Amino acid sequence: MIRSFAELYQATSSLPKRRMAVAAAHDLEVLQAVCDAAERNLVDVTLVGDAAKTKELAAEHQLDISAMELIDMVELPAAAREAVRLVSSGAAHMLMKGIVDTATLLRQVLDAEIGLRTGRLLCHVAVMEIPQLGRLLLMSDGGMVIAPTLEQKVDMLKNCFDVAKGLGIELPKAVPVTALEQVNPKMPATVDAAALQERWQAGEFGEGVMVSGPLAFDGALDEEAARHKGITDPVAGHADILLMPYIEVGNVFYKALVRYADIKVSGIIVGAKAPIVLVSRADSPEAKCNSIALASYLAKI
Amino acid sequence: MIRSFAELYQATSSLPKRRMAVAAAHDLEVLQAVCDAAERNLVDVTLVGDAAKTKELAAEHQLDISAMELIDMVELPAAAREAVRLVSSGAAHMLMKGIVDTATLLRQVLDAEIGLRTGRLLCHVAVMEIPQLGRLLLMSDGGMVIAPTLEQKVDMLKNCFDVAKGLGIELPKAVPVTALEQVNPKMPATVDAAALQERWQAGEFGEGVMVSGPLAFDGALDEEAARHKGITDPVAGHADILLMPYIEVGNVFYKALVRYADIKVSGIIVGAKAPIVLVSRADSPEAKCNSIALASYLAKI
Repeated sequence: MIRSFAELYQATSSLPKRRMAVAAAHDLEVLQAVCDAAERNLVDVTLVGDAAKTKELAAEHQLDISAMELIDMVELPAAAREAVRLVSSGAAHMLMKGIVDTATLLRQVLDAEIGLRTGRLLCHVAVMEIPQLGRLLLMSDGGMVIAPTLEQKVDMLKNCFDVAKGLGIELPKAVPVTALEQVNPKMPATVDAAALQERWQAGEFGEGVMVSGPLAFDGALDEEAARHKGITDPVAGHADILLMPYIEVGNVFYKALVRYADIKVSGIIVGAKAPIVLVSRADSPEAKCNSIALASYLAKI
Repeated sequence: MIRSFAELYQATSSLPKRRMAVAAAHDLEVLQAVCDAAERNLVDVTLVGDAAKTKELAAEHQLDISAMELIDMVELPAAAREAVRLVSSGAAHMLMKGIVDTATLLRQVLDAEIGLRTGRLLCHVAVMEIPQLGRLLLMSDGGMVIAPTLEQKVDMLKNCFDVAKGLGIELPKAVPVTALEQVNPKMPATVDAAALQERWQAGEFGEGVMVSGPLAFDGALDEEAARHKGITDPVAGHADILLMPYIEVGNVFYKALVRYADIKVSGIIVGAKAPIVLVSRADSPEAKCNSIALASYLAKI
C-alpha cells in the first residue's frame, strides 16, 4: 500500500517502465515536467507535436530529450489524435495533455474508433498527501465535472475506487461530503449521499469497498470529531476518498490546502482505458511530477 | 483596522463594555465560553435560562458567574424570546445561542414584534486569521444559507461589507468564488459572480467597497497566481471577503483549514439588528471566545 509520494516514486521507478504519449509536447513547461519525470526514472516518453519547436525548446533550456521518441505532428488536433492512438494501440500506456486545449484532447479520448472510452464518466481524481493524516487522500472532482448527477457520482466513485485499489488501499472507504450528517431534502448533496450509501449496500460498487454518507468533512476525516458528534458509522474518521458535490467544493478545498497547509498533491483524469495526466500551469513542478508518477504507477502495461 | 485576533481582543476590551444576552445558558460548554470571554474583559453577560441549573453547573465546575445577571426562564422558547427581547429593547447589545436549537432562536430573532429583523437575509460570516495572508479574511457562508439565490447573495455581500467596515477595513474587496475565471452558462456560480460585479458597478453596494468575479480561490487571494493567469482585475489577489456559492464550499473550506492549516477562526450570524453568536460544539474554546470578541466589537451600544 502506497502511503506517501516518496513511496509512490520508489514503487513506480522499480516497475517495468511505462510509456507516456504527450499530446502537443512543444511547450516549455510541458517539456520541463516530462524531463523531470524521465530523469527520476518514472516513465518513458513519446513526444507528439511540432518536433522542430520541441528540439529548439529543449536545446535552448538544456532539457535532455535524447532518450525520448519524437513524432512530428504540427497540427494540434492531429497531434492529440496520434497521442491517443498510441495509447489505444498499446504502443504507449498513458496519455499526457500538452498545449492542446482540454476539449480537443478529450474529443479524441472519447472517439469511437481510436479513443479510450470505457463507457464510464471521466473525472479528475486528486491524490493528496496531508502530513496529519498518515495516508493518501483521494478527492474528486475539483476540475472537471461541474455538478454531478447521482449517476455521475456513481461513476466518479467507481473511478476513485479504481485509483485507491491501484494504490493498494485494501478496503477503500468513500464519503460523499456534505455540510451536515443528516438527510435534508433542501440539500441535494445529503439526499445523494444517502442514495450512494444505499447503492453500495445493494452491491453497486462490488466487494471490498465502503461508501458512507451523508458525512461532513470533519466527520469523514477526524475520528475524534466524529465521536464528539456521536457518529458511530465505521467509515467516519477513516475516509480514503472524498466525493465532492460540486466542482467549487473540490476546487476551493484543493487550492486552499495547497496554499495554506503543508501538503503534497497530484491529479489525473480517470475513467478512460488509461490514466491521463492533465496538469495546470498553476501546478508546481513537484505537483506535475507527482501526477506523472501517479499515472505511471496506475498504468497497465 | 483590525488585522488579527490579538488586535481584536485588545480593541474590544478597551471599548465601553457590551452586554450579551445568552438564550438558554444552562449548559456547561456555553457557560465555559461565556466565562472565558468575560474574564478577558470582552463582554458583560446576562444569562437567560434555568437559573438553578446554571448556578449548579457553575458551582460544580468552578465557573465564576458572580458578575453576571441571571434571568430565570426554564422553558426554551421563552428563554429565547426573553434574550431576544433584551437585545431589541436595548438592555443588551448582542445575542448568543445557548442550548436552544437554532430554529427556535431564529424564530424569535425574526419575530415581527420583539425580534431583530432588518429585512435583510441572515447569514453566517466567518472571520479567519491565516498567517500567510497578513489580514483577516471574511467568508460566507459555511453553516446557514444552503444554496443562495442571486438576491440572497446580494444580501450576504451587504452583511459581509458591514462586518468588514466594522473591522475598519477601508475598501473591502469581495469575490464571489467560482472554479474558474470565465463566465460559463453551465456553472451558475460564474453567472451570478458576473451579475454581482455588475450590481456593484451599478451602485447596489454603495461607495467604498469592491466586488469582482468570477474569480477562483487562487485568483482571489494570491497575487502571483492571478498574475500568472493573466488576470488584471484590481481585486484579484487582494480579496477580503469570499462569498461561497454553496454551503458545502464554505463548510469544507473552513473545516479543512481549521484541521490542516495553522489558522484562527471565529463566526457570527449577521443581518439582524445585532450580532448573534452561534458556536458549534465542534468549535475549539479559542474559536468560541474569538466569536464572542468579534460580536462584541461589532455590536452597537
